[in-house]
Amino acid sequence: MDLNICVLPGDGIGPEIIEQAVVVLEKVCEKFGHKLSLDEAQIGGVAIDAHNTPLPQATIDKCLASDAVLMGAIGGPKWDKIDKSIRPERGLLGIRKALGLYANLRPAKLWDELKDASFLKDSVIGDGLDIMVVRELIGGIYFGEPRGEGVDENGERYAYNTMVYKESEVKRIVKLAFEIARKRGSKLHSVEKANVLDVSQLWNEVAEEVSKDYSDVDYHTMYVDNCAMQLVRNPGQFDTIVTGNLFGDIISDEASMITGSIGMLPSASIGDGKVSLFEPIHGSAPDITGTGKANPLATILSVSMMLRYSFDLDAEADLIEATVAKVLAEGYRTADIMEDGKECLSCSEMGALVASKL
Amino acid sequence: MDLNICVLPGDGIGPEIIEQAVVVLEKVCEKFGHKLSLDEAQIGGVAIDAHNTPLPQATIDKCLASDAVLMGAIGGPKWDKIDKSIRPERGLLGIRKALGLYANLRPAKLWDELKDASFLKDSVIGDGLDIMVVRELIGGIYFGEPRGEGVDENGERYAYNTMVYKESEVKRIVKLAFEIARKRGSKLHSVEKANVLDVSQLWNEVAEEVSKDYSDVDYHTMYVDNCAMQLVRNPGQFDTIVTGNLFGDIISDEASMITGSIGMLPSASIGDGKVSLFEPIHGSAPDITGTGKANPLATILSVSMMLRYSFDLDAEADLIEATVAKVLAEGYRTADIMEDGKECLSCSEMGALVASKL
Ligand SMILES: CC(C)[C@H](C(=O)O)[C@@H](O)C(=O)O
Ligand SMILES: CC(C)[C@H](C(=O)O)[C@@H](O)C(=O)O
Repeated sequence: MDLNICVLPGDGIGPEIIEQAVVVLEKVCEKFGHKLSLDEAQIGGVAIDAHNTPLPQATIDKCLASDAVLMGAIGGPKWDKIDKSIRPERGLLGIRKALGLYANLRPAKLWDELKDASFLKDSVIGDGLDIMVVRELIGGIYFGEPRGEGVDENGERYAYNTMVYKESEVKRIVKLAFEIARKRGSKLHSVEKANVLDVSQLWNEVAEEVSKDYSDVDYHTMYVDNCAMQLVRNPGQFDTIVTGNLFGDIISDEASMITGSIGMLPSASIGDGKVSLFEPIHGSAPDITGTGKANPLATILSVSMMLRYSFDLDAEADLIEATVAKVLAEGYRTADIMEDGKECLSCSEMGALVASKL
Repeated sequence: MDLNICVLPGDGIGPEIIEQAVVVLEKVCEKFGHKLSLDEAQIGGVAIDAHNTPLPQATIDKCLASDAVLMGAIGGPKWDKIDKSIRPERGLLGIRKALGLYANLRPAKLWDELKDASFLKDSVIGDGLDIMVVRELIGGIYFGEPRGEGVDENGERYAYNTMVYKESEVKRIVKLAFEIARKRGSKLHSVEKANVLDVSQLWNEVAEEVSKDYSDVDYHTMYVDNCAMQLVRNPGQFDTIVTGNLFGDIISDEASMITGSIGMLPSASIGDGKVSLFEPIHGSAPDITGTGKANPLATILSVSMMLRYSFDLDAEADLIEATVAKVLAEGYRTADIMEDGKECLSCSEMGALVASKL
């Protein structure tokens, strides 16, 4: 198969982790006889430095010309004080919109070998955690209009954003979440705040309609405040969660953190178009950039998600996941997940090890 | 001193826990020679049943005529399907607005005696947890206009809410939070989503201006998604948190849950007016209503907050808190916080015990 991948290393540890993910990707392609073509483009801080915009048109074009995008991480203190309209995050929001990536899939899975890493008590974790958060990614209050700031008749400043969803936006994300839930534990929680928000009431109405086609999936609604509690109290009750952009931002981060090993978590952003984007959920970690302490596994697992979702290459994806599990089982760790009696590897050592064991 | 208290028992376990809190309040007043006058009014489901509205005008009037309001809990499955405009929650939102209660203070404190109740590992909890969440309560997306739903030119349904804050709203809540932080650990985190929302950018600008008057308080900003993670990862870093209405709803519930003993947590809602409202943070627990399993301690501790905030009766407030600590230390528990080797009391037994030991 031909794989045309656009890589966006980004900022901070981005380039380091992408380098190792590419090592693994190349090895997989070699092993399975796929033809890999890599292109590279700039996003975030590096793009600001070079082109005064976090998302140059050339980057969008290269992404659109590829089969899939693999991203590292963006942002850092260097760009914290620049004008908000061109901050690194704008690049991320922009590429999501430009590629029509309406769904962000964020698995929060606790690796058996890393159970001790969770911040929750063993009794709370039980048999483990395996939650998939499906977050709407290009609607809601992130992009809603009108938005802005102003000065009222008393000379007072005010600012506002609009949380808005239309039927079709809710329908496509909820449908996708039901499809995903069906392939997993057949249980879906739709997370909203319908006791307060009109937009959540519509969300629930539409979700309820969609649920009629999925009577085999156990469907629940849950208020977002309650969900934030239940994730700590009894995370095992969740299989798949679907929610809007803002709630998904908060809930998916909380869910990932209860696993305790955020350096292990990949994500996929997909849409109706052919090009999807894959990235680790962790940030650019400026504090450890260049020290070799970064954990490349979340990015390597993002490659696995890419092979699965963009190319239907399940055997290849499975092999990467099994190899990561094996490397962990053999006692290899990076600094962020280090425990007594294990062997701590640098970012590049970990990448090379996974590639060699494939 | 004369204490004119309006009690709103509400629904579910509301009446049971209020009854015990009143037993304790009466005992404290007797002991310290205060003259207590109690009035009672309806809110939530009981008010819907009796008057077809969750917040009768008579209730507002009685609250406004009192010195302080003590509330139980509202809502339950019985009223889940009725028209949203008169659902129980509307009563709660309405009374907050009617009394101008712009600040919701929610302490998330782990009682020494209940450390084992936390869902987090001992290593994460460290020396304990003592976080105060200061949530803006009558602005933001909860009340922002315009809001509603409609049908667009293609016949598609859509719905929207407006998250809006003006300068004065942000200023008063942030000022209050700085005052509170100063009396606690002198550290304040302002939680927002300024990398995406215009309204959070204004929030930050105003908070930054206010912070100039509190150079003795260690001031930080934090994105809400990061805060949701940090509360699980390292809750000990927080002392006081200030945030908007929606983020506060989510973050304060998460913070309370990491203590593991939500049946122990009181709250205060205060404003510029003289009348504040005090209530446990837990809900109406329809599943255990009438079984005697309810824990009255959160409501009893809400009485303590009332004495402190509304009447400056610190000795009385301290006595209640010390008595609760003593009762726990002596091994008495309610069902929700029961552990091996302790003695489990019913709701009324616990109320009577605390009153007798004052
Ligand atoms: C960087 C930021 C704009 C982004 C978001 O809020 O979506 C991030 O938190 C994420 O979840 O990918
Ligand atoms: C019942 C609901 C409207 C309310 C809120 O969202 O404010 C509740 O969750 C709370 O936190 O007091």
